[in-house]
Amino acid sequence: MASTDTPSAGTPSPGSSSSGTPSPDSHSPHTASEFDRASVQKVLDAARAAGRTGLTATEAETVAEAYSIPTPAQGLATSAEEAAALAARIGFPVVLKIVSPDITHKTEAGGVVAGVTTEAAARDAYATVLANARAHQAGALIEGVQVQRMATEGQEVLVGAVTDPTFGKVVAFGLGGVLVEVLEDVTFRLAPVSPGEARSMLDSVRAAKVLRGVRGAAPVDREALAGLVVRVSQLAADFPELTEVDLNPVFASADGVLAADLRLLLGDERRRERPHFTDEEILTSMRRLMEPRSVAVIGASNEEGKIGHSVMRNLVDGGFTGGIHPVNPKARRVLDRTAYASVLDVPGEVDVAVFAIPARLVPAALEEVGRKGIPNAVLIPSGFAETGEHALQDRVVEVAREHGVRLLGPNIYGYYSPWQNLCATFCTPYDVRGGVALTSQSGGIGMAVLGFARTTNTGVSAIVGLGNKSDVDEDDLLTYFAQDPHTRCVAMHLEDLKDGRAFVRAARATVPEKPVIVLKAGRTAAGSRAAGSHTGALAGNDAVYDDVLRQAGVIRAPGLNEMLEYARALPVLPTPQGDNVVVITGAGGSGVLLSDALVDNGLSLMEIPDDLDAAFRAFIPPFGAAGNPIDITGGEPPSTYEATIRLGLDDPRIHALVLGYWHTLVTPPMVFAELTARVVAEARARGVHKPVVASLAGDTEVEQASAHLFAHGVAAYPYTTEKPVAVLGAKYRWARAAGLLP
Amino acid sequence: MASTDTPSAGTPSPGSSSSGTPSPDSHSPHTASEFDRASVQKVLDAARAAGRTGLTATEAETVAEAYSIPTPAQGLATSAEEAAALAARIGFPVVLKIVSPDITHKTEAGGVVAGVTTEAAARDAYATVLANARAHQAGALIEGVQVQRMATEGQEVLVGAVTDPTFGKVVAFGLGGVLVEVLEDVTFRLAPVSPGEARSMLDSVRAAKVLRGVRGAAPVDREALAGLVVRVSQLAADFPELTEVDLNPVFASADGVLAADLRLLLGDERRRERPHFTDEEILTSMRRLMEPRSVAVIGASNEEGKIGHSVMRNLVDGGFTGGIHPVNPKARRVLDRTAYASVLDVPGEVDVAVFAIPARLVPAALEEVGRKGIPNAVLIPSGFAETGEHALQDRVVEVAREHGVRLLGPNIYGYYSPWQNLCATFCTPYDVRGGVALTSQSGGIGMAVLGFARTTNTGVSAIVGLGNKSDVDEDDLLTYFAQDPHTRCVAMHLEDLKDGRAFVRAARATVPEKPVIVLKAGRTAAGSRAAGSHTGALAGNDAVYDDVLRQAGVIRAPGLNEMLEYARALPVLPTPQGDNVVVITGAGGSGVLLSDALVDNGLSLMEIPDDLDAAFRAFIPPFGAAGNPIDITGGEPPSTYEATIRLGLDDPRIHALVLGYWHTLVTPPMVFAELTARVVAEARARGVHKPVVASLAGDTEVEQASAHLFAHGVAAYPYTTEKPVAVLGAKYRWARAAGLLP
Repeated sequence: MASTDTPSAGTPSPGSSSSGTPSPDSHSPHTASEFDRASVQKVLDAARAAGRTGLTATEAETVAEAYSIPTPAQGLATSAEEAAALAARIGFPVVLKIVSPDITHKTEAGGVVAGVTTEAAARDAYATVLANARAHQAGALIEGVQVQRMATEGQEVLVGAVTDPTFGKVVAFGLGGVLVEVLEDVTFRLAPVSPGEARSMLDSVRAAKVLRGVRGAAPVDREALAGLVVRVSQLAADFPELTEVDLNPVFASADGVLAADLRLLLGDERRRERPHFTDEEILTSMRRLMEPRSVAVIGASNEEGKIGHSVMRNLVDGGFTGGIHPVNPKARRVLDRTAYASVLDVPGEVDVAVFAIPARLVPAALEEVGRKGIPNAVLIPSGFAETGEHALQDRVVEVAREHGVRLLGPNIYGYYSPWQNLCATFCTPYDVRGGVALTSQSGGIGMAVLGFARTTNTGVSAIVGLGNKSDVDEDDLLTYFAQDPHTRCVAMHLEDLKDGRAFVRAARATVPEKPVIVLKAGRTAAGSRAAGSHTGALAGNDAVYDDVLRQAGVIRAPGLNEMLEYARALPVLPTPQGDNVVVITGAGGSGVLLSDALVDNGLSLMEIPDDLDAAFRAFIPPFGAAGNPIDITGGEPPSTYEATIRLGLDDPRIHALVLGYWHTLVTPPMVFAELTARVVAEARARGVHKPVVASLAGDTEVEQASAHLFAHGVAAYPYTTEKPVAVLGAKYRWARAAGLLP
Repeated sequence: MASTDTPSAGTPSPGSSSSGTPSPDSHSPHTASEFDRASVQKVLDAARAAGRTGLTATEAETVAEAYSIPTPAQGLATSAEEAAALAARIGFPVVLKIVSPDITHKTEAGGVVAGVTTEAAARDAYATVLANARAHQAGALIEGVQVQRMATEGQEVLVGAVTDPTFGKVVAFGLGGVLVEVLEDVTFRLAPVSPGEARSMLDSVRAAKVLRGVRGAAPVDREALAGLVVRVSQLAADFPELTEVDLNPVFASADGVLAADLRLLLGDERRRERPHFTDEEILTSMRRLMEPRSVAVIGASNEEGKIGHSVMRNLVDGGFTGGIHPVNPKARRVLDRTAYASVLDVPGEVDVAVFAIPARLVPAALEEVGRKGIPNAVLIPSGFAETGEHALQDRVVEVAREHGVRLLGPNIYGYYSPWQNLCATFCTPYDVRGGVALTSQSGGIGMAVLGFARTTNTGVSAIVGLGNKSDVDEDDLLTYFAQDPHTRCVAMHLEDLKDGRAFVRAARATVPEKPVIVLKAGRTAAGSRAAGSHTGALAGNDAVYDDVLRQAGVIRAPGLNEMLEYARALPVLPTPQGDNVVVITGAGGSGVLLSDALVDNGLSLMEIPDDLDAAFRAFIPPFGAAGNPIDITGGEPPSTYEATIRLGLDDPRIHALVLGYWHTLVTPPMVFAELTARVVAEARARGVHKPVVASLAGDTEVEQASAHLFAHGVAAYPYTTEKPVAVLGAKYRWARAAGLLP
């Protein structure tokens, strides 16, 4: 139970010391600073000293009290008579539960009798509970029997916390009861949460409406419920050894909240061992990696087909104007440049050493890189952890730490930094400069990134392979991309995060400036984790990833192609200034599908005011449909598209345009593309920046028209009504996460 | 209530005649033939005669009895004493409800008191209910007060039926209670349903697990519940005027089902007026439309830019070898062919008249088409219902009916029948023959179909514009495509169905032979229908479409691009013979994403038996991962791809292959494509037909490689791990719907 901090006379504070006297239901407000951490630590230490992983009811009550977790009125009885008297004072119905440090699973031990409605029944229940417990475990130490008021009023919810392998402590909120347990309607956030984040959790469950009152029920006390979530999240965050906290059910009503059952599990307090760099340290080495003046290639070769040859060729052919230093003990020159026997022989400072030698030779060469004072080693070779060679990888990491060298890879294709004309990779070169920075954990996905970028002519600021992530990972790169003026959007393919909290920190710092798109693979594998609580069972790996990435403001791409399409389009689209989306279409059929897609993407069709409706009507045939979508009808000349698009751009009440083009002889595809590009450019010259996306339905000429539009700032796609709206939706999601929309 | 058919002594049959004597809970089994339709008709007729749209509790009980709908024990009391006695005999708790034909909303009238647990309370409740009812409506005719046992045990579910504007009577099943009402966890089927369909409904709700017993609860009696769904569906089907039936809640438990509340609404029995053709009649005219020997073009023109010119040009250039007869009173010849002043002047039989004249001239010309005995008129012109000219369209339909002419359109681009070299359209010609028949309601979507087909070189058996669907619609075409030997897959874009039941009939006849893909636009608009019941409120237009299309075995495409991709791939892929899918990948990263996609598409990775695992391991490097996905690793030569793919094809336990290719210098894209095409062809030559799909990650050469694979029977895509699996998933969905999989 949790009483007020200063127990009033007549209602003594509860716990094992308050045997026989019930504590009242408590709802007192607390602030974080008021938490009684010392009492909790004492309870936890005692349990650990006794070698237990669970807490007794009495211990749980102490924790609840310390963190102002309201529990039903209760007390500890040590005789049947005391139980009956306690029950009478508390008020029926009550539930009786055995209190024993030796009995973890009370229900299985027959140690719980619920629904007790009379004093006589309470006496019987006391005897039953005791007898069952003794039968279950003969020598169990029994402190007594907890008599607790049964909470039944209100909506059942679940509040809990678990220790996630990636993100550490996360707090959970869900709707309780059988149905929602089956539907797993639960949401997670990094612990601790602010009151605002806790309130957002109440709205994040699918059945959120229930909390606002349905079927005439009064809405629950949201402040009390959010406050409880905050306190549970703080409790979990304060005690690393508290691996699972499970309040299930909590009864939430208009009058407040009451945690009918608390389950607390203790575990190992594992601390990640990971070198921590400051942002400045990260930036210093990342800048030298991404904007090097001089690069050495360890294992540079004149022999075609060798990786050391491809890397040299790409560096030279890519037009990198800094130093390119081949290192090869057997060659005097490589690709017409002086080769050195050792990197130690290279004159002057070197920023990056690219490794193109077999895995087993890496440690020795890395030693030399360290002695040369090169801050970055790019380890292309495979044959490390991914092939089971963990010891070799550990050795490499050790050498790097000794010398303060940061490692990219191993097991990667290398990396591209187009604004530096840098192709430090054995793959094909890429030179279209632009605003997208892409990273991939897998080489295969990296190749898909490259091919997609080339075929769509996507402007890129970086493509980086991360491979085994023995050192440099997503948060290091994000820290760099956040401040890189060329990068306007970051897209990352990842299978895991070495340090979820570091990633969230970096993402939160980046998102206000530029969108961060993540393709998290291994979504549905949802490793079955051993879990000792409901919250634990619900915290499948992906559920936590999904909620925490959203909490960090990241746009999660559902698949590879979506990640690529978002990355291509987001830097092209201006940020919307409001929620009013208007569809202008030459094909009514496309208008319907575009409207479907808008709803699918959480966007809504603007309600067009009468004057604006009249203004649109002036341009379209009488049988066309104004409203929204605005159906200009199929047979219209270029001037109708032009006039309506211009009106859409100029009216300040409209914030985004979705265009549906229909290929006709009157307005051929390239005519539409050119007029739209011109009208959009004119508007931008007038200072009007609105996102415009387009779906082009027609014969194959619409492909060229779409490319033309894309090159002129309109995200346009042939043969699909879904993609243009999906990228607009992603832009809106980012704008909201960045706080740029109301 | 529903008693057994033959009331036993001491428990007289209930209803208004049984005042004061309770009927027992009833669970008697019935067959359809035993339904007492006459009693229901009598009740409904009486209510209608009285101008009521609702039924009283007593009337509802009669209906329940007639259709063996089990209801809690109840009876009618006409005095407080009788109510108390009745309650005592029934057993507490009871609920008392006013019975009055004049009071529809009992609760609002204060006419319901629930939770009555004593005789005294029953007396009070009787008085309260009566007083409230009189206060609510002074002159209301009051038959008495219903005393009913309160059902509380078991899982709350909802069983109902509504009249859908497209599909007519549909039956609904959902989980009751506040939460699932909020989550709208409900499923629909065309009424009446078979017991098998009813059972499938129990598994179709998201929280289906609840019915199988969770948290230690016993599973509900599924047979009883399915039986109830069958009987409610039969009731709705038997009485067209019964527009809504709502059993909510029904309490389902291990002991059976009990409908605690019945709501029945009467409405207008509207019958669709639609000419009905037999399949033979449909086929006769559709064959002449799609395989004509002779076509007349009304409004054929020599003037470029005119529709009548484009149609003539496409017919001639398309290579149609049948008769092409221009009709134009002002020309002697059109495109070097004899022109006729009237279609009546054309010599010999004509199968199709294509109209390329202004809308207002259509009726007169159609009159001549009718007199000539031409069975099909293809109405390209717009300017009919879509522009508000309903009267003109009605006139055209009337003329057509008079003469037995079937109408395609108006307001369409025309149609293509590539196997006949027929391009009866003003759009660009298309000549790639193949197995896909595509139809679109909208012209814009039709143009997207054309462009997509051309750019992907998709083999087509038909492209047909449906436009305003004044006559010919999807079910006519489906009837033709079902028996057309060239058509192996049908894809239809539609915004509505004129006759949902006719479509379902045609789809059901087609699906066992070939897949039917539907893109239903207007998905999310979900017109807000006025609804008088829970079931009605849940039956948003799209929810019913979604369930009924699935019931018909149709594959619903979520968007335009998916429809096009499914249509392209499904005829290429052989039908899988079982559920065992194996992923073979060169890129571990693709393997993870392909696995995600498999789960998303309801497919599962085969558990690889030990001997098969060993067989795969023999081909891959020791650090590669067998299991599933089989990761052959990135640096492997063509022989590794070849050996593992061949093994995947040859082992009879494997039913489908998903390939993940990674572009490397060792195995370039076209090498992979050619070897895979060859291995697949060799397997087919040995009689091994398994679907194989592929995701190609790499530089732009993977585009050509994907095209090569597609042309050789492997559905392959660059830069996406989602599409190959989505089309495989669609093929599996069809195979299941067609009954070709266990």
